[in-house]
Amino acid sequence: MRRFSFMGAATGVALALSSMGVSAEAPPVDADSIATATALRETALKSDLAWDLLEGLTTEVGQRLAGTAKEREAIDWAVARMQAMGFDKVWTEPVTVQHWERVSETAEIVGAHAQKLTVTALGKSVATPEGGVTAEIVPFATVEDLEAADPALVKGKIVFIANRMERHRDGSGYGPAVKARGAGASIAAGKGALAIVIRSIGTDSHRVPHTGGVTYKEDQPKIAAAALSNPDADQLERLLARGKPVKLHLDIQTVDHGPVESANVIGEITGSERPDELVLIGGHIDSWDLGTGAIDDASGCALTMAAAKLIADQPDRPRRTIRVVLFAAEEPGLVGARAYAAAHEKDLDKHVIGAESDFGAGRIWALKASVNPEALPVIDTMAQLMGPLDVVRLAGTAHGGPDVGQMARLGMPAVDLEQDGTDYFDLHHTADDTLDKVDPAALKQNLAAWVVFSYLAADWPGSFK
Amino acid sequence: MRRFSFMGAATGVALALSSMGVSAEAPPVDADSIATATALRETALKSDLAWDLLEGLTTEVGQRLAGTAKEREAIDWAVARMQAMGFDKVWTEPVTVQHWERVSETAEIVGAHAQKLTVTALGKSVATPEGGVTAEIVPFATVEDLEAADPALVKGKIVFIANRMERHRDGSGYGPAVKARGAGASIAAGKGALAIVIRSIGTDSHRVPHTGGVTYKEDQPKIAAAALSNPDADQLERLLARGKPVKLHLDIQTVDHGPVESANVIGEITGSERPDELVLIGGHIDSWDLGTGAIDDASGCALTMAAAKLIADQPDRPRRTIRVVLFAAEEPGLVGARAYAAAHEKDLDKHVIGAESDFGAGRIWALKASVNPEALPVIDTMAQLMGPLDVVRLAGTAHGGPDVGQMARLGMPAVDLEQDGTDYFDLHHTADDTLDKVDPAALKQNLAAWVVFSYLAADWPGSFK
Repeated sequence: MRRFSFMGAATGVALALSSMGVSAEAPPVDADSIATATALRETALKSDLAWDLLEGLTTEVGQRLAGTAKEREAIDWAVARMQAMGFDKVWTEPVTVQHWERVSETAEIVGAHAQKLTVTALGKSVATPEGGVTAEIVPFATVEDLEAADPALVKGKIVFIANRMERHRDGSGYGPAVKARGAGASIAAGKGALAIVIRSIGTDSHRVPHTGGVTYKEDQPKIAAAALSNPDADQLERLLARGKPVKLHLDIQTVDHGPVESANVIGEITGSERPDELVLIGGHIDSWDLGTGAIDDASGCALTMAAAKLIADQPDRPRRTIRVVLFAAEEPGLVGARAYAAAHEKDLDKHVIGAESDFGAGRIWALKASVNPEALPVIDTMAQLMGPLDVVRLAGTAHGGPDVGQMARLGMPAVDLEQDGTDYFDLHHTADDTLDKVDPAALKQNLAAWVVFSYLAADWPGSFK
Repeated sequence: MRRFSFMGAATGVALALSSMGVSAEAPPVDADSIATATALRETALKSDLAWDLLEGLTTEVGQRLAGTAKEREAIDWAVARMQAMGFDKVWTEPVTVQHWERVSETAEIVGAHAQKLTVTALGKSVATPEGGVTAEIVPFATVEDLEAADPALVKGKIVFIANRMERHRDGSGYGPAVKARGAGASIAAGKGALAIVIRSIGTDSHRVPHTGGVTYKEDQPKIAAAALSNPDADQLERLLARGKPVKLHLDIQTVDHGPVESANVIGEITGSERPDELVLIGGHIDSWDLGTGAIDDASGCALTMAAAKLIADQPDRPRRTIRVVLFAAEEPGLVGARAYAAAHEKDLDKHVIGAESDFGAGRIWALKASVNPEALPVIDTMAQLMGPLDVVRLAGTAHGGPDVGQMARLGMPAVDLEQDGTDYFDLHHTADDTLDKVDPAALKQNLAAWVVFSYLAADWPGSFK
């Protein structure tokens, strides 16, 4: 996942919406609707469906790196599952993705204190020259220190950025830390560095480095970019603290096969009264290649598919259509979501509200909404029905998640079902993102919140905009 | 480490000792001795020395696989440190070790559900044929099930043993589980298997597989043996549960360079009255190659070196000599310890008592002793002085640890300072055995217990035998 709220984008949606001067004639939530949502919540708390889907995708497909055959396998898997579950419509929409792959990656201290370090290439990193590069390490505490550095200090060396991500429930440690990953390479290259290694953007202490995308500036040379695991970054810091030059041999081999066709997967449960009005929910079908992407983001795909299915299993369909979109190629930079927004901007008004699950599988603890103030009583009703799930109603702007949020940026109302992300960045973008890390009970609690939101959003006849 | 108590060996020492008919004239522990031991305990609780040594060995040397240049580097490091700390005598004694190394290791499901699995070669494993082997997996819940299996089921396949180690404070889950690692390969080979993969013998859920020695029977073919990480073993079990054949491609490349010379490192703090009587303490200087061996067993080396040094820093030396032995090549099968016992069996009577630290760096919670009953009041005094460290006196046999225990098997009295091993097998023999896993406060608590034991054992004039 990438939370653009940390990236400084997509603000002011709530303010914009609240000044739109919408009708004050918002209808109440009817009692049948509340009864059905309550029953759905209880059904979800006993349902294994999200787990079954999560287990299926992570076991039968495993990793599903954007642009690869594994992503296509995941797309086929999702289409088949949606069809088998009886979604009313299932289709895919094309997305053009860059097909990048890692080939090999090694790092070792050479000379005094020679030893191997555990490293992984950042996503989209170019390769080092064949056979790797060997150079002295020049360390910086932060990417800002690198930015301020005299190029003479950096030229011909391998940059190391040591900053350590902080652990917070809301993931707010990510933003300050991740700039080293995104921007560090081009800043270092601009000063003549041969390569860059960063401390993993993660909160764990395991020998499982965190990958994630690097963003090259077009006007700078491209250098290989890699992340050390936290224990390896600690080790490098200790070696550097001895005050003598530390020399690293870094060999990163990757390949960019160029653009290929991938696809967003779309499945719908058709609304009974307003089938052309959409409640947009989903996650992203791709993952990084190191783990099986259980928390990022098979759980989001599983939860939203399962929520739609439980709603479809009710005797009566809600008024509006529930559209589940499993976005392709989120990790390399919201590629599927941008394609969706470009294709569906013309249908923006049909998207009455949206929400995404892409922050792991921790329990949902809060509900936030960016909707027309007249629609807030419906949000309050959702929150009340989520009360037994220990979900609170938070003030503030909802962004709709990284992918669904691309429509929210265009003006679609959005809800955030905030998950507890305390441990999320222990696993995020690592080999350790595997099914065993998901608590089945927490997944059921998530599903219960998702059915309440999705059903009420689809069945309430008023406008969120 | 290998705890031979789990292996069924070395029992009956206490009984043998108690029937030796030693003198009932055991002298009391004198007040000066108690005062010095108490002061040493308080000094140790404030001392960074064990941490400094642990940090030095794991940072400056890193991994130190038996028989390799890295083990020799560690030996040189230890000799230099002992000399710099002012040990009265420092020397090495030769040990012949097999120089085995891992080269590469990959495992992947092929065919349906193709995906890579995280794997590591077991220590001393032979290689697969070049290019690896590809065969159907035949799973067994336990090595006993494999033992009972019809060879027709196994022939031409890759055996998988799924048994999961249990977590216990005393490490007692290790014994039942580890037989799969030690004996599984030859049992599988005897039935015609092409290779064997086991679930890691460890209690964690990270993508860091656990290595450890395999023991080949001379009368069976040798096949490659490897361990999957726990999440990968889970994944394989889920794939197998789907009821269709699962095919694995396993490529394990290792090389055995034959016998080389290594060395036990020995340092002494000479006793003031009975310099020829020895209190034997130590750990092992080698480690597996995946991590930096912080808990296995740099911490044991650091603690016993530091304990001797703190005692040497007192105004007066204890009566007896404290001998610190850092054993070579423990991991491949107690090679250094066996060489020490063979070389020093003739001096057995000079070894008045011994103890080893080789169960990580968790807090010490219990003291056990196998000594002459007349010497038990001294053990009780030790326990009393360790009371403020929350150490209790346990009944039962002390084995003296894997290396020092080789002398205990010959009849040397022994003490065990039992560490809390609840988390030990999360890290044991993995890439995750790194310095960040050690709690500096727990290390100080360990050191405090070690100085109390070592000083009182060296200064009390009576016999433990």
